[in-house]
Amino acid sequence: MYRFDIVHSSSKSKARAGVLHTPHGPIHTPVFMPVGTQATVKGLSPDQIKQTGAQVILANTYHLMLRPGATCIDLHQGLHRFMNWPYPILTDSGGFQVFSLSNQCRIFDEGVQFKSHLDGSYHDLNPQKVVDLQKAFRSDIMMPLDICSGYGASFQQVQADLEKTHAWETTACQYWQALQTPQWLFGIVQGGTYPELRRQSAEYLSGYPFAGFAIGGVSVGESRQQLEEIIGFTAPLLPDLKPKYVMGLGLPENLLFAIQEGVDLFDCVLPTRLARHGQVFIQGKRVNIKRAEFEFDLTPLDPNCACYTCQHFSRAYLRHLFKAKELLSQTLLSIHNVYTLVHFVDHLRQEILSGNL
Amino acid sequence: MYRFDIVHSSSKSKARAGVLHTPHGPIHTPVFMPVGTQATVKGLSPDQIKQTGAQVILANTYHLMLRPGATCIDLHQGLHRFMNWPYPILTDSGGFQVFSLSNQCRIFDEGVQFKSHLDGSYHDLNPQKVVDLQKAFRSDIMMPLDICSGYGASFQQVQADLEKTHAWETTACQYWQALQTPQWLFGIVQGGTYPELRRQSAEYLSGYPFAGFAIGGVSVGESRQQLEEIIGFTAPLLPDLKPKYVMGLGLPENLLFAIQEGVDLFDCVLPTRLARHGQVFIQGKRVNIKRAEFEFDLTPLDPNCACYTCQHFSRAYLRHLFKAKELLSQTLLSIHNVYTLVHFVDHLRQEILSGNL
Repeated sequence: MYRFDIVHSSSKSKARAGVLHTPHGPIHTPVFMPVGTQATVKGLSPDQIKQTGAQVILANTYHLMLRPGATCIDLHQGLHRFMNWPYPILTDSGGFQVFSLSNQCRIFDEGVQFKSHLDGSYHDLNPQKVVDLQKAFRSDIMMPLDICSGYGASFQQVQADLEKTHAWETTACQYWQALQTPQWLFGIVQGGTYPELRRQSAEYLSGYPFAGFAIGGVSVGESRQQLEEIIGFTAPLLPDLKPKYVMGLGLPENLLFAIQEGVDLFDCVLPTRLARHGQVFIQGKRVNIKRAEFEFDLTPLDPNCACYTCQHFSRAYLRHLFKAKELLSQTLLSIHNVYTLVHFVDHLRQEILSGNL
Repeated sequence: MYRFDIVHSSSKSKARAGVLHTPHGPIHTPVFMPVGTQATVKGLSPDQIKQTGAQVILANTYHLMLRPGATCIDLHQGLHRFMNWPYPILTDSGGFQVFSLSNQCRIFDEGVQFKSHLDGSYHDLNPQKVVDLQKAFRSDIMMPLDICSGYGASFQQVQADLEKTHAWETTACQYWQALQTPQWLFGIVQGGTYPELRRQSAEYLSGYPFAGFAIGGVSVGESRQQLEEIIGFTAPLLPDLKPKYVMGLGLPENLLFAIQEGVDLFDCVLPTRLARHGQVFIQGKRVNIKRAEFEFDLTPLDPNCACYTCQHFSRAYLRHLFKAKELLSQTLLSIHNVYTLVHFVDHLRQEILSGNL
């Protein structure tokens, strides 16, 4: 049922266009995936998400295990029915959130113990449990427990984290294979900003039968140059016949770069987070809708955009909603931002197919 | 273009079913109108509002004159295009808000001066200006400036307020007629809880060629019995061939009572306000979605409801969204609550037509 087909490989760059087949439909790659951390893309109904052109969304294991809990989602036969999104879903492992969000966190060889940021309760996670949770979620693509070293961590620290990450991912991969679930599990390459560690990680993980590979530990504070170095160095080391995913990337310039390095999948909270602060994409630029110049502006956000928001509302109306702190502001601005990123990547896919990228 | 046709009058009560024709389409009465104070029904896109079955919505002159201002809405050729709602709109005069929301308020013979609750700026309103504002808004039904006496005000106070209200409404009516705008202007009956003053007000205003009549100054703190006394006494005093509107009514039991007294139009913030606090209508009762018993409840809010929310989401999911403070919670709960009230009144209309009410 799962299959990744590369439809066209560019002769001008490493870019490729593909189709990732899942039980919930195909994903045409390269693709941008909006984030629905708590089983909702903030402010959008499933209909509205679909209207942005999104093919697949992300949800987060850390958040969902704490609330509403795996039992509740399992009872709904998984996330798709729980949130009424019948299309593909990828779930992040929650590793990143364990280290960034929880109040306390202790790392053992077998896994981590952490204190919930919601109510202070203690929880354990280990590689097997993280797969089990995502099995209950029925996500189409699962991610294994890993350690995302903080930006600026020393070589020794990153190396130690990487060793544990590899052990956990090996366990996860073996556990996943024994389960014989149809869901896919990806491996996650770590290694911070150290090329040698990135190479070690890519080579080590490539030896395991993961269904695809992600580059983690980026978009955590590094410069654009460092980001490009990591992606440009690591992506080509991953098996070309499997999907490649860079986690947490949402700026158009970064997406363009990574796609040319052969990356297929992207996710980011950027479009909905920007919307919450009134920031919108207008012809490639980020602009705040609060600006006084929009007070009487009858034109749509972006005259070339075909999203629901641009087809039906003026900048003046959107500015009014934002200033009046109306909920509809977040919804309409998010629709535009998500649509913009989804279609930016779709457009690059067309450029690959027509031999221009 | 405007016309009010009574299609059927009940033989069992004063209830009637009618059609109010407007340039933006017909309104089948009796009807419940959701409130979109700031040119948005909180949390709902125009598509979502329409899907609730709403035929007409309310907006508020006080809020809109302050933000975004009449100039902005006028530039959009009115509220319909501004908020992308091509169906009928009724605008409240803002009289109620001037007295309840503004920081300071001085009443003169010619009108009122008040201080904005937004930025402390001073503004004047008078009967003519309130009509001019609504002319700029292009609302289908306009309301005149009035004074809504506080609940518990003395006979003398209410009488004095009423005298001023009548003078203002007379001015508004004459000004409106001279303008020759196709928009409709209603009169507003005041008089507090004093039958004698209500009678005076109804009789006085009936002498002017308003297009319809509203009963104001209810739902301001009085008991259900007092409310029913006011409506039961006042509604029959209004001209039967014109639409009758009770302002601010949203509880099903109150709507049922008023419809049997011949009232045609209702509005209330209740369905969206309740949703904000997690309160939903379930088979006639108000229930909080937070309840622990809903944690694993896979059934829809109301198994007999055909709204988007009930067709697609479980109580467990809606509880999760509310507890996680997700924006989508307000949207989905509002859709259900608005749908419920709109269809409750629609159902009563069918009962009138089939001779059961």
